[in-house]
Order: sequence, then structure tokens, then C-alpha cells
Amino acid sequence: MWVNDTLNVNEKGHLTIGGVDCTELAKEYGTPLYVMDEDVIVQACRSYKKSFEKYYNGKGLPLFASKAFCCKEMYRILAQEGLGADVVSGGELYTALSVGFPAENLHLHGNNKKPEEVKLALQNGVGKIVIDNFPELEMVDQIAAKLNKTAHISIRVKPGVDAHTHDFIKTGKIDSKFGFALETGEAFKAVEQALLCKNLVLDELHCHIGSQILDTEPFVTTAEIMLDFIYEIQTKFNYKITQLNLGGGFGINYKQEDNRPPFDSYMEAVSAALQAKASALNIVVPYIFIEPGRSIVGESGINLYTIGAIKEIPGIRTYVSVDGSMADNIRPALYGAEYTVVNATQAANSADFKATISGKTCETDTLQENTLIAKPAVGDILAFLSTGAYTQSMASNYNRTPRPPVIMVKDGKTRVVVKGETYEDLLKLDV
Amino acid sequence: MWVNDTLNVNEKGHLTIGGVDCTELAKEYGTPLYVMDEDVIVQACRSYKKSFEKYYNGKGLPLFASKAFCCKEMYRILAQEGLGADVVSGGELYTALSVGFPAENLHLHGNNKKPEEVKLALQNGVGKIVIDNFPELEMVDQIAAKLNKTAHISIRVKPGVDAHTHDFIKTGKIDSKFGFALETGEAFKAVEQALLCKNLVLDELHCHIGSQILDTEPFVTTAEIMLDFIYEIQTKFNYKITQLNLGGGFGINYKQEDNRPPFDSYMEAVSAALQAKASALNIVVPYIFIEPGRSIVGESGINLYTIGAIKEIPGIRTYVSVDGSMADNIRPALYGAEYTVVNATQAANSADFKATISGKTCETDTLQENTLIAKPAVGDILAFLSTGAYTQSMASNYNRTPRPPVIMVKDGKTRVVVKGETYEDLLKLDV
Repeated sequence: MWVNDTLNVNEKGHLTIGGVDCTELAKEYGTPLYVMDEDVIVQACRSYKKSFEKYYNGKGLPLFASKAFCCKEMYRILAQEGLGADVVSGGELYTALSVGFPAENLHLHGNNKKPEEVKLALQNGVGKIVIDNFPELEMVDQIAAKLNKTAHISIRVKPGVDAHTHDFIKTGKIDSKFGFALETGEAFKAVEQALLCKNLVLDELHCHIGSQILDTEPFVTTAEIMLDFIYEIQTKFNYKITQLNLGGGFGINYKQEDNRPPFDSYMEAVSAALQAKASALNIVVPYIFIEPGRSIVGESGINLYTIGAIKEIPGIRTYVSVDGSMADNIRPALYGAEYTVVNATQAANSADFKATISGKTCETDTLQENTLIAKPAVGDILAFLSTGAYTQSMASNYNRTPRPPVIMVKDGKTRVVVKGETYEDLLKLDV
Repeated sequence: MWVNDTLNVNEKGHLTIGGVDCTELAKEYGTPLYVMDEDVIVQACRSYKKSFEKYYNGKGLPLFASKAFCCKEMYRILAQEGLGADVVSGGELYTALSVGFPAENLHLHGNNKKPEEVKLALQNGVGKIVIDNFPELEMVDQIAAKLNKTAHISIRVKPGVDAHTHDFIKTGKIDSKFGFALETGEAFKAVEQALLCKNLVLDELHCHIGSQILDTEPFVTTAEIMLDFIYEIQTKFNYKITQLNLGGGFGINYKQEDNRPPFDSYMEAVSAALQAKASALNIVVPYIFIEPGRSIVGESGINLYTIGAIKEIPGIRTYVSVDGSMADNIRPALYGAEYTVVNATQAANSADFKATISGKTCETDTLQENTLIAKPAVGDILAFLSTGAYTQSMASNYNRTPRPPVIMVKDGKTRVVVKGETYEDLLKLDV
């Protein structure tokens, strides 16, 4: 019935997450509310780690894509589970460093890194800087020289794979702002140039083909292309690239019909392809990085709202307004994202009421159109499932809305990991 | 050449706003940067006020739609210019009250007001609560009773006008979460019920047909429909609605070809229609409220960015990456919003270079596709024009990006009105 097995229905007919009654959570912390089940996050981390043991003899590391969900506590959990992280900005890097996250397990990304971001990374010993473009090669080389450091770098390659996903999040094809294209020879030129930079050490090639991909095949194709390129570099420059970063993009279950493959199956399929290819090329399989973000935190999270106005437009639709909005979850408005919505107060009742869920901001703000929920009443708690990725991290104060707190649930206990904003917080930067 | 006459080119060939060199602004305050010309805001306020004098003998008031741009200083400017404001949340209300904005000139809106928002409004003497749905009528009546206050209310009516604008911002038609439909008799029933509520005084009818409307005709039609309804109420209930709120939605120039009508022409056309209609119905023209938001602040603002990576994809396009992103301006990604983009460093040169402007967040993040600018170089300052509305107010910390400051320009001088966020600010709520 559910997209995820952390969710259940208790004897009161209420939805529970990690054993905690959602209506109680709403009562204790108010709504709108972000709730995340820590065990689901930890399980995803361990699943990837285990797959690396199984298929690569431990020669690889998952790097959590911080942009999916970034706060101090997330880095503490990652550190504890032995994962690394990719950071795409000075702000993410700063957050990771603030809790003592091991800098050597951080990769700095970005299509347009600021010099101060690169400086912050090099000063703190960040493990890898993923180079996106030619001027950046030069910039990182110069900053490293100034700091008297050696920068370990990766070259971001556009492998030319079209991953059949949303236009906004399809990034591996040639028409992308990210990286160096393989098919035009640009990537080859980037490697050539990187090898000439005195303060840079080229460890790795990087690629990323998109997001929310529910099929293993594009990952396999990409891995093969990348290994071919490593072989080509080895042949032409007599230089061994020892690490390969295959990026992220593993899909999760938003709706039951998404029916995602187990994360392990991506790992198995890709490792098999890499081993076959490496064997054919007579080279060693490089150390592998992957960058799961959504698949680590997405299914762990739910958003809770309280139902307010219910408005039936006869013959057209019923608007069910909640106290959250596009301010706490922009994905429906931005990407047309679909979610499974559950009436958490009536979770035992059948979901046969067709509702259009509206947010409370002063525009159309449709959070979900014509979705089936158990018949709602004013005051019922509504849950959006699989909201752990790209909701809180993309939240705004639109309509001067304070951002909700993030509550972590574990073993039937709850704790605040990000405090909710107050009206007073909203004024702090106003002069 | 420009969408707006506050913008010019100085002897260095740099874009200026309110007499200040944009490249100097970038140097002093850094980029990304929100800059607003106070005179443009003040002129828009005065234009509406003057139109009310001219066409309504002063019997009306413009209420600034706070959601377009909300900070303390904005309310100070509005108060000084004698405008009111519409607020759509407790947060906007709290901000207005924090600088002593006259509460009687505030209207509280919202399709799903929280009881605590209504309470905050009534306790502070907010001028009007715009009722959106039946349960709200009851809620406001009860809260007023508890506080021993009389609530002055408005009824939000869906006049059934389709304003031919973006789907997300078309709100006057029957299929909308907002208000009571006229054509189904729902609005009539709402009035009937409101008149029975002991702690409510029904002063006003409200309507709003959409946003960024560049044609006066839908406003005229709506005004006539609303006056007909006031007449109907007067006839059936012998009750005079003395105030009419016609909402906002007046379009601005994003691109030169938008060629918006002068704001005064909306006012003239609508007042003429109202007077003719009132005369035909033999009723008095009510006191008029309008709710301009975008048209007060939109054209006053520009966003400044520094150009970083420039990446030509041969035969496809050239990506010009800037240090801002969808985090500081979500409108292109969210609404497909178009802007006029100017290379502020090369503003005297002809805009003949076709560029796709990319933000720096870690997704496609196209800020403007295939737009013409003067040939860019790394380090040039890029200006997006007409960004004063719905950019800063919708900003997020996506990719853990600190939100830029807002600088107000006046008489060649600059001042910070909203401070920029620091990395440390980003951690404040993290536990």
C-alpha cells in the first residue's frame, strides 16, 4: 500500500512514521512540518556501502549529494555511516565543515565556482575539486599555487547519454551547462590541459546523467563510455586515471507505480559492466564514487499539513487547502512533481475522495491535482510522502512564510534537527 | 531602448540605475545583488494616488500587494506615500506592524487563514479581513466575539473573468481555490451569511482576476460585474456595500515589446465604466481599493550578477554562467518568465551576442534562454531588468546559497534595506 515500509497505520487509524503517530507529531510541533525517519536514511547509506563491499571489494565510496537535504545533522549521520558528500557551493561546504565532517571525503562541484569557494575548499583540504570548464582549470591551479597546495581534481565529462527524465534535470547530454563534451573532443582537451597544470593532480573523471532515473540501463551505458575514455587517456597520455565518479540520479518511489529498482541493482549492473569492460580493455577497474542524494533521503521524509478550507466547485473539482504551500515544497509547481498523499487522520479509510490539494500562498499554488485521499475533514492532518529530498532544501519565505522545522524520528522518539523559523527570524536581515 | 527610464549608460559605457554605475554597485556590495530605485517605487505609488484624485475625487486607496516585495523599508515607503497594503499571511502582517504601519490600512487575505493569523489581525486593528470561504466566516466571527471586537470584512468574489494570463496566476475564474463564485450563487449566499454574523461588518466586495495583465478590458468587465452584484445585494437585502476592491494584476514591462499601458489608463477606463454603470443603476460609486504589487516595485528593480564560465557548445548555444541562480530568482524556472538582460559592463555595445544565461545551482537552472546581450567577457556584470517583484520575495537557500542583499538607490546614493545572508546565518536554525 505505501511507497515505503516505515509508514504504517496504528489502532486509531492514524498514519505513523517510524512508529510515531503523525497526528501527534502535528500536535506537538505544529504544521506544516518536515518529518524524516532516520532509520530509512541510515538503511539507504548502508545499502550503498554494502553494495560497494559486495561488487567492488570496498573500492568505492558513496558521496551524498548535499543539495537534496543539507543541514548539520545530516553531515553527522553521513560521517557516522562512513559516507562522503558532494557539495556544490561554499554554503554546503561550510555546513559540512562546521560539524567536523572529514574534508577529504568531500567533492566540490559547480558549473561556476567562485574563487572564494575554491579557496575555502583548498584551505580546508577538500578531497576533490570537480572541474567543469577551462577557465576553472586555470583558476584552481592559480589558487592552489597561491596557497602552496596541490589540488586533487576530477574532470566533469558529458558522456552524451540522454536519460529520459525531466528536461530540467537531464544533464549528461551535450547541450548542458555542465562539464566537457566527450563527442566534440573537448573532454580530451580538458584532460590534456589538466595534466599540464603544475598544482593539479588529475585523479578522477566525473559524469552525471540526470535525476530520478528508474532504469539501470543508462547507468550501464554511461559507465562503459567512461571506462572507454579512461582507456583512451591511458593509451594516448600514458596516464592512469585511478578514480571514476559515476554521479547520482537513482530514482525513488514517489508514487507506488514508480516501482523503483532496489539501489543494489544499479550497483550490481554497473559493476558487472565495468568489470567486463575493464577485462576487455585489459585495465584495472578504477575506484568508484557515486553521488546518491534523493535516494538517500527522499523516501525517509514526509510533509505534514493541517487541512483548512474545503471548497467544492460543483462539477469541476474539490479544493482542499492546507496550511503549507509552494514555500515549503516548490516541486509540484516547479517540476509538476507528483506525490502520494495520505489523509493521516483517516489513514485506515479507503482513499476514494478526489481532491486538489492547494497551498496557502496567494497564487494558484496547487500542491497536487486530483489525487485520491480518504474523505477529508477540516483539521485532518495530510501527509505528502517521499518528501525528504529537494523540499526543505528548496524552501523559501514566499508570502513571508516562516520555514517549518525538520523533525527526525528514530526508535519511536523525535528530535528537532532544524528549528522552525519565527516571525522575528523573518525580520532579522531587514534594516 | 530600456524598459524603464531609470536606466542609462554612462560615459564608461556602463549601465546605471538611478544615476549609480552598476559595476560600482557590484564592486561595493558584491554579486548577486538586488538593486531597487526608490524613485521608481515612489513614482508608481504617486501615479496611483493621483489617479484616485483625478477619477474618484480621492475616494479610493491603493493597497500594495506585499507578496511582491516584503521588508520593513517597503512598508516605511508605503506609509510615507499614504498607501495601504494587502497582507496574505501572519508574516507579512507582522512585518508591517513592526514598523508601525497603520493597521487600518491593511487588508488581510488568504485562501486558508490560520486562526492565529486572524487573531493577530483583529488584535492589532487590521482594517479589513477578506473572507475567502464559508468556514472562515464562522471562524472570524467567533474570534472577533472572543476578542470582543467587530471585524470589518470583505467577501472575495470570483467574477468569472478569464484574464488570458499564465495558468498559475489566473485566479478570477470559477475553477480557483480563491473566493466565492458569482455564477453559482455561492457569492450571494456568502453575503447572506455574512450579514447574519453578529461580530462582522460587511463593508466590501473583493475580486482579483490575475496577474501581469497588459490589457484594460478585463478590468473594465470585472468592475461592471462587481457593481451589478452590489446593486443586486442592495435590491435583495436592502444593504449597501460601500467599498469595492478590484484587486491587482496590472502588467509591467519585462521586455520592451510588452508595451504596457500607463497605470493611469487602467484607472481611467475602470472609473469611467464604474461611473456609467453606477449612473445606469442609480447607485453611488463605492469607495475603491486596488491592489497593485508588481506594478509598484517590478520595474524599480534589477538583479546584478558576475559572469563566470562562458561555454560555447558548437552549433547549439553558448552558456554564460553567472554567480546567481534560481535561488535568487525562481521565476524563469517556475513560470518561464522572460526578462530583458543587459551586459552592464558593455552597455554601450550592441546586443548582438546570443547567450543562454545559466545560474550556478547544481541543476539546469536556465535564467534566460537565447537572449541577446553585448559580447560578454568573464567578470562582466550582467543585469536582469524589472526584477523588483517576486524575485527577492520568492528567494530560497537552494544549494545552501546565502540570499543576496537588497540595495536601494536614491539621488545617486545607496543604502542597504535588506542585509545579505552570511554562511553563518545559514546555520542558525540547524541543531
